[in-house]
Amino acid sequence: MSRDPLLHSGEMLPDDHDAPLAGLRIIEVSSFIAAPLGGMTLAQLGAEVIRVDPLGGAPDTTRWPLAPNGGSLYWAGLNKGKRSVALDLRSPGGQRAVADLVAGSGQDGGIVLTNAGHQWLSYDALKHVRPDLIHLRITGGHDGSTAVDYTVNAAVGFPLATGDSAGPVNHVLPAWDVACGLYAAVGILAAERQRRRTGAGRAITLPLADVALAVTGHLGFLAEGRLTGASRPRIGNHLYGGFARDFITGSGDSVMIVTLTARHYADLARVTGRTEALAAVERALGADFTEDSDRYAHREVIAALLAPWFAGHASDEVAAALGGTSVLWEFYRTFADLAADQETLANPLVGLIEQPGIGQILATGTPLAQRGAPQAPVPAPLLGADTEAVLGEFGTSRGQ
Amino acid sequence: MSRDPLLHSGEMLPDDHDAPLAGLRIIEVSSFIAAPLGGMTLAQLGAEVIRVDPLGGAPDTTRWPLAPNGGSLYWAGLNKGKRSVALDLRSPGGQRAVADLVAGSGQDGGIVLTNAGHQWLSYDALKHVRPDLIHLRITGGHDGSTAVDYTVNAAVGFPLATGDSAGPVNHVLPAWDVACGLYAAVGILAAERQRRRTGAGRAITLPLADVALAVTGHLGFLAEGRLTGASRPRIGNHLYGGFARDFITGSGDSVMIVTLTARHYADLARVTGRTEALAAVERALGADFTEDSDRYAHREVIAALLAPWFAGHASDEVAAALGGTSVLWEFYRTFADLAADQETLANPLVGLIEQPGIGQILATGTPLAQRGAPQAPVPAPLLGADTEAVLGEFGTSRGQ
Repeated sequence: MSRDPLLHSGEMLPDDHDAPLAGLRIIEVSSFIAAPLGGMTLAQLGAEVIRVDPLGGAPDTTRWPLAPNGGSLYWAGLNKGKRSVALDLRSPGGQRAVADLVAGSGQDGGIVLTNAGHQWLSYDALKHVRPDLIHLRITGGHDGSTAVDYTVNAAVGFPLATGDSAGPVNHVLPAWDVACGLYAAVGILAAERQRRRTGAGRAITLPLADVALAVTGHLGFLAEGRLTGASRPRIGNHLYGGFARDFITGSGDSVMIVTLTARHYADLARVTGRTEALAAVERALGADFTEDSDRYAHREVIAALLAPWFAGHASDEVAAALGGTSVLWEFYRTFADLAADQETLANPLVGLIEQPGIGQILATGTPLAQRGAPQAPVPAPLLGADTEAVLGEFGTSRGQ
Repeated sequence: MSRDPLLHSGEMLPDDHDAPLAGLRIIEVSSFIAAPLGGMTLAQLGAEVIRVDPLGGAPDTTRWPLAPNGGSLYWAGLNKGKRSVALDLRSPGGQRAVADLVAGSGQDGGIVLTNAGHQWLSYDALKHVRPDLIHLRITGGHDGSTAVDYTVNAAVGFPLATGDSAGPVNHVLPAWDVACGLYAAVGILAAERQRRRTGAGRAITLPLADVALAVTGHLGFLAEGRLTGASRPRIGNHLYGGFARDFITGSGDSVMIVTLTARHYADLARVTGRTEALAAVERALGADFTEDSDRYAHREVIAALLAPWFAGHASDEVAAALGGTSVLWEFYRTFADLAADQETLANPLVGLIEQPGIGQILATGTPLAQRGAPQAPVPAPLLGADTEAVLGEFGTSRGQ
């Protein structure tokens, strides 16, 4: 790695020579979630990711959530461990500088990750300066239409199957952006493997709408909709095709209870003292509650029999009783609860870091745990903090 | 690739010699969503993925959604393009056969992807037969606890921020499983890159709970919770820190409307004929609706001014009016609507395939579009369909 810690904002980067992607170099021209997350996923495994922004920043520099001082926790969170270069991307000189970075990024470079559609940044434009270019562009729809997480989510069916109210319920986690960013990281690594074997680069297009469509298909909802002409019903917090639901304890907390096997279910019946009552219901209904499908069919009856036990026990009693069983369970909590939990801070992928422009923040590294690749987070750069250093290393001018 | 199409169930696999992961070989011992999706993500880019199951199948073989004939659309959806080997994994002979597959899977093999914790399947056990082993194990929590998508989701905060009812609202998309599967694919490709450079394999652990924790951190919610001691408010289908919301048209359809920039917002005000009214409100409130934060602060007022326009226009009029603008919008629809849409079938990643055991189903390939790597889906194997062929190719016995 050619990084000079003295030129880098914030804390020194950990020694990542053993990190699996050490040496890999990516030029990222991005904004919002998917493309930045794709680049950061690679950076957190040791790649050198240089994010290039227009002077003053891309439209994501001020996005919420914000710190009390106004700094974007969103931007800081999605750009950790990158280097930041800011250029006048409207000028031919700035555009040439980006091409120079791509051309000069070494044997393990020549990789562009972007969600921008500028002609000067396209595969066709840049392959002239870098014939083995790997170029991955995230788009909206595969027909070139624009789309964001909220619009593709509306189109694939999940909001109308979520919750138990009448209208659509949007997700709060931008799950399609997250999946798209991770698919982008997969696509780049797969292409780089092929380039090592054949010398050839490639152009890859990754439409956000297609990520949502593909995953909806992988989960069987598309096939079900086609075969039955109907969509899965809207079942609130129940699990489709099994028994799982939230309950409220005597302390007023919500707890999620999941049974995926007959053993989980038998343990749940036993610990709540409902084995006999449930067996009687089973006989009366001619059902077999060792079967997922029968537990699902009679989920409301089962839940009604269990609910009083949860309501009659304090949360710590519920936790103690379930703790020794095979049942899968977890209390619901807020983001603030999660952030305040000592176990969160004790996790090796979590750290309190000094984020330039904001101050001390709670941040996360990679969930991929392995020797030689530190999981702890490092800060995001200040916008443009590495412009001089990167241009100097690459022998590139800033352009006019 | 050593596949013999005559031995493979269903349609012939497309020619994938140019696929980026051609030659890569993975032994997957998995169930449910995350690990199977991780393997399938690599298979859909050309890797040979051999899923090994116990005789009779793992607990995911019968999971919902189901086809009318009872076949699992879930299993079929998550195991497309793999080969299936079924063995008595409780017997030492069956366990030895898995080790033989790992040992004999060639230079581009020696890769294990699993969510099972058996000692005989561990990195420490298998590195003896394959010193350069890459072993990625998906677990529940990083402390060894069990967890599933529903429980980790409860723990990280999203259900208490979703919707606008009082209790938690679970997501229907198992987003953490999906992210975990994609992180697994990234982890394997990164490790394989390092192995090509150094010859060394590695053991990687990927806890589902840590995937959720990491991403919650990346999005800034963990930092916000810690800095402010509070969580983002529950705002239904509104966008946090901007103006976006669902509206109901005169035809009774719901449409999601998103403005991420001042231009989007100005276009929305213009097309709905509310430019003057909104400007008057802006002056009266001393607000600046070109700013995301002011649009967010006054989101209910803006929405109330816009809602009558949507209610007063049929869905096709709404679509026609918005179509020529920069506004991001999409009608909500069900899984069945999505499956019935001709545009869905016209997408190159979608196909009607002959799925052994089920019949014709609508299925999806990879969203990563590139020359030389077909996007169209291929069927999943029948459980155990490739046992004889794989053991024969590897010169491995079935064990006792």
